[in-house]
Amino acid sequence: MTEFASLDDLRRACSDLPSPDTASAQAATARQNMLTKPQGSLGRLEDIAIWLAGWQKKPIPVLDAVRVIVFAGSHGATARGISAFPAEVTGQMVANFAAGGAAINQLAKSVGATLSVVPLEIERPTRDFTSGPAMDDGEFLAAVSTGYDAVQADTDLLCLGEMGIGNTTAAAAVAAGLFGGTGAEWVGRGTGVDDAGLNRKAAVVDEALALHAKRLSDPLVVFAALGGRELAAMFGATLAARKHSIPVLIDGFVCTAAVAPLAKLSKDGLAHALAAHASAEAAHRRLLEKLALKPLLDLNMRLGEASGACLAVNILRSALACHSGMATFAEAAVSNH
Amino acid sequence: MTEFASLDDLRRACSDLPSPDTASAQAATARQNMLTKPQGSLGRLEDIAIWLAGWQKKPIPVLDAVRVIVFAGSHGATARGISAFPAEVTGQMVANFAAGGAAINQLAKSVGATLSVVPLEIERPTRDFTSGPAMDDGEFLAAVSTGYDAVQADTDLLCLGEMGIGNTTAAAAVAAGLFGGTGAEWVGRGTGVDDAGLNRKAAVVDEALALHAKRLSDPLVVFAALGGRELAAMFGATLAARKHSIPVLIDGFVCTAAVAPLAKLSKDGLAHALAAHASAEAAHRRLLEKLALKPLLDLNMRLGEASGACLAVNILRSALACHSGMATFAEAAVSNH
Repeated sequence: MTEFASLDDLRRACSDLPSPDTASAQAATARQNMLTKPQGSLGRLEDIAIWLAGWQKKPIPVLDAVRVIVFAGSHGATARGISAFPAEVTGQMVANFAAGGAAINQLAKSVGATLSVVPLEIERPTRDFTSGPAMDDGEFLAAVSTGYDAVQADTDLLCLGEMGIGNTTAAAAVAAGLFGGTGAEWVGRGTGVDDAGLNRKAAVVDEALALHAKRLSDPLVVFAALGGRELAAMFGATLAARKHSIPVLIDGFVCTAAVAPLAKLSKDGLAHALAAHASAEAAHRRLLEKLALKPLLDLNMRLGEASGACLAVNILRSALACHSGMATFAEAAVSNH
Repeated sequence: MTEFASLDDLRRACSDLPSPDTASAQAATARQNMLTKPQGSLGRLEDIAIWLAGWQKKPIPVLDAVRVIVFAGSHGATARGISAFPAEVTGQMVANFAAGGAAINQLAKSVGATLSVVPLEIERPTRDFTSGPAMDDGEFLAAVSTGYDAVQADTDLLCLGEMGIGNTTAAAAVAAGLFGGTGAEWVGRGTGVDDAGLNRKAAVVDEALALHAKRLSDPLVVFAALGGRELAAMFGATLAARKHSIPVLIDGFVCTAAVAPLAKLSKDGLAHALAAHASAEAAHRRLLEKLALKPLLDLNMRLGEASGACLAVNILRSALACHSGMATFAEAAVSNH
């Protein structure tokens, strides 16, 4: 069990992060330029192959052990009427994951990935962050540690996602706390709230920002005060992936908000991560831009559960199929102008 | 062997096209709305499942027989210096396809699709369209027929693509002929021409538009005069798919230009087709907009060969995995607000 003794201890772990292996990335680049296609014509598939090579430290990377982890948490702020679904749906969906009936079960299977679901004390919601910090330091660090330890070192690619009724409001609050702006600029319809619900979400975020105004200068303090356990766990998992040099696919708005503090704490803190998609949740695109992340997919999805991350696995598989399987100009006797 | 006796005969075949099965599409819609997710939260995956249901005439569609056809052709206009690669690369790449060394071989395999390559008289290039029509009516109709007959009726999904040095110039000319605009507005860098090559491409298209000015009122006459055999074959294959009610994935700029005449000849002529991706070829996005097609992917690819279409197969597979495998709210005992 990895334990972070304090926010300072965690902050130290988030600095001095490992870099990708430039020799492997360079070898992958050289290979791409010899394959039977106009140079650059596979676009982002070429970039992806080279990026995977760097983080996996292999000129020809592999995607055998692709693992999806969905973290689930409960939010005290749901009492404020911020979701179209009742709070008990979080637990019901965890049961649905276990029974194999949710979207992520089908998607993980369809891309050849293994799925783990990690509930984080879902019977014990975080505090309503309009009345105090959502988590105290101990609760926050415990959730980060759970996420950290959920990552197996021999993973070739990690897909992260979440389930938690109310968590788009927590994500909006974290984003506002980290990057500024009002509630209205960061909230969206989540599972499908109406206009009144959307206004309630904005008001709740503004209340929380006012209450915690003095805490907004430190990314980890912001995160503990405004986030949730599943967000903290995704952060921990992303940190663990970096320590193990595992490439990561980030899912939608909540997942992106959860990993954003790592970019605040360390330059290039998210260099080992790609944004799988731009979700339909209004502020996701804005958040991706703040983090200079360019999404791979844009399919109007807004489910969470790592569903967008899972879809993007296929793009990475296609990139590697070309990278590892194509003939070179010399092998195929094709004129390279 | 399907034979089109004349342009009029082909024109008749392009009118009165079959519609999708609304009962199957409605049943698929009803199913989507019962699955354990907020309604609409799978975005385009939901639309895709319903679209496939309509064309396959099945409430729960399947993607067992996914077939990729790559048509190859040679272009007389290559003598005008419009490509970064010599004309003989078309034949060399057909050999590379046969040997399994090209990108499309890896991509088709990775999505579980079968690949057919259909060379169309590649030793006999079309006429340079700045000196006369690229094809006479007989040559054009023969290529359309070859494409038409390449489609097997029992196909669940058809992916179309092409190989042909010089064919982005032909596609630009066809697009300009159908939708107006100058050469400069429709040409791009193709396999990677420099600025001088780009200017030559624009000039060649403008020359062709001037020479064939009197022919530009009829989509099929435009197409025969400015297109190429592989373009005509993709058009024929798309028409055959419609007759057999087979959904189609359109690839990049050249493929989109090749199927555009069907939209000109029949309202909703491309309703059975989805644009797989927006390519990096400059005018592709413009052409997609003219056809009201919204691409599924945008990965800066510009290879052709049906590579973009193949990548999008995964998105369709994911859509069906959710559609066919997810539990309903009732089955999973999840509260549907």
